[in-house]
Amino acid sequence: MAPHFADTLLERIADKGSPVCVGLDPSYERLPEELREKEPSLARQAQAVGEFCRQVIAAVAPYVPAVKPQIAYFEQYGHEGLREYFDVVAEALAAGLTVIGDVKRGDIGSTAEAYAQAHLRNRQDEKGRPCTPDAITVNGYFGEDGLEPFIAAAREQGKGLFVLVRTSNPGGAAVQDFPGHDGREFFVHMAEQVARIGDGPELIGQRGYSCVGAVVGATYPQEARRLRAVMRRQIFLVPGYGAQGASAADCAAAFDAEGRGAIVNASRSVIYAFKNGPSMAWQGIVAQAAAAFAKDIAAAVKG
Amino acid sequence: MAPHFADTLLERIADKGSPVCVGLDPSYERLPEELREKEPSLARQAQAVGEFCRQVIAAVAPYVPAVKPQIAYFEQYGHEGLREYFDVVAEALAAGLTVIGDVKRGDIGSTAEAYAQAHLRNRQDEKGRPCTPDAITVNGYFGEDGLEPFIAAAREQGKGLFVLVRTSNPGGAAVQDFPGHDGREFFVHMAEQVARIGDGPELIGQRGYSCVGAVVGATYPQEARRLRAVMRRQIFLVPGYGAQGASAADCAAAFDAEGRGAIVNASRSVIYAFKNGPSMAWQGIVAQAAAAFAKDIAAAVKG
Repeated sequence: MAPHFADTLLERIADKGSPVCVGLDPSYERLPEELREKEPSLARQAQAVGEFCRQVIAAVAPYVPAVKPQIAYFEQYGHEGLREYFDVVAEALAAGLTVIGDVKRGDIGSTAEAYAQAHLRNRQDEKGRPCTPDAITVNGYFGEDGLEPFIAAAREQGKGLFVLVRTSNPGGAAVQDFPGHDGREFFVHMAEQVARIGDGPELIGQRGYSCVGAVVGATYPQEARRLRAVMRRQIFLVPGYGAQGASAADCAAAFDAEGRGAIVNASRSVIYAFKNGPSMAWQGIVAQAAAAFAKDIAAAVKG
Repeated sequence: MAPHFADTLLERIADKGSPVCVGLDPSYERLPEELREKEPSLARQAQAVGEFCRQVIAAVAPYVPAVKPQIAYFEQYGHEGLREYFDVVAEALAAGLTVIGDVKRGDIGSTAEAYAQAHLRNRQDEKGRPCTPDAITVNGYFGEDGLEPFIAAAREQGKGLFVLVRTSNPGGAAVQDFPGHDGREFFVHMAEQVARIGDGPELIGQRGYSCVGAVVGATYPQEARRLRAVMRRQIFLVPGYGAQGASAADCAAAFDAEGRGAIVNASRSVIYAFKNGPSMAWQGIVAQAAAAFAKDIAAAVKG
């Protein structure tokens, strides 16, 4: 039987000494000069963003336990972009990193089954390497039967999910803070659904966490604290640090009393760190940014 | 300036005489014998589902104004599946059909911009044909700044959106029916957001409908009637007919008093009609099923 997703992730966090994840959001226009050319085709742009991500993975792997490729940034280069996405996933898995595919898929059951097949169930690429992520983000708007195919795939293959609960962007509040009849906001209701669906005994690992986690934005730390009380067995994937404005102290609110149970993501502030850096190789600047990010979060969570 | 999405769609509905859409949800296992082979690679499966969809398009084009390829069913065949998805979109556009890409994407603004680039903004394929849909489905969980990049692309390029409001699956209610402090359910709140965001004068076409529409499942006709009152300028994309159990009379609740403003989708009950059919070419059976579907809905809406 495959090891449990949450157990593996928590082990890797302990090994690297920090609960952090580097988001891979590649845009051709922001790549280092050396990876760009004049008037590239869409396919050449796809190859370049893939190459960039592979080098970022090599640079950050010593410092972080996980990476999170954001599939939208690959899809914008068409089917060649998707080829690079799965190649980047394969490369990160081979580097011993936990890979969270940020795909935010969600649909009715029969369609969700196709998405689970596409993005979660084990598959090998043309080179014979596993190329589907250890976990993916999903959208819970369709309710339990929309989540079920993802949960079945996760349970069977030692993989994980992060269900969107509270997002990190400014506009999320107008939807997610909808006040309920009993005073609870809609996002708390969503959190209760995630806890109910995700806390079956067959879904919990040896360390007490479920393979069904939640996305909880760090831009609202007071809400992260409330959600921690509702979702005790969910690992929180925490976006919002860095480019989106949340501090390490804001992120610390997502962790449990022992400083466990969450992983903080930073994307642009790490992978594009070289834009503001001194004149050294960009890979070194990205590695430094990843190390600084890991140290910042580790200090805030333990402190 | 590009013609307005809603105007073009309503014109095509009038031309074909029925407000219907055929969903393209291809699974290799369900294809006609002649398109299958022994132990196909993932790439061969992708090619076969693409070929199936191209033949379905040719079969149904005389009877229906629109098709809706569901991208999950293509993604399950990896990047080769995505290549076929864009090829199927290009083929349907060339056949003069309105193409609704059922992608249900949604994320924070910067990521939504990448998705809009991938799935909505005009792009040509390797053969020089337009290959992005006329409209896509999107998930509104991120609120207004998550929708804005899609709306900008739609406005600039004469394209459209359908924002998820009420889904057709059984589990949707546990999330979407969350009761609000003033008695309204959450899905009504979502509908109000869609109407507010989608009803700017620059988004409304000559026939009074916005390029920002809504997905409203037909499995709950009494709710469709309530939502029609909240979203007067939204075209409703109505799933649930056929395999999901809704009747033509159920679907009629989504239309306005003049029998306009909605389009009903059927997927499996049309494209797999040949499984239960007599021994004639499967393409003919699919064409008959599409014609019967179009007639059924047209009669219910006018009646």
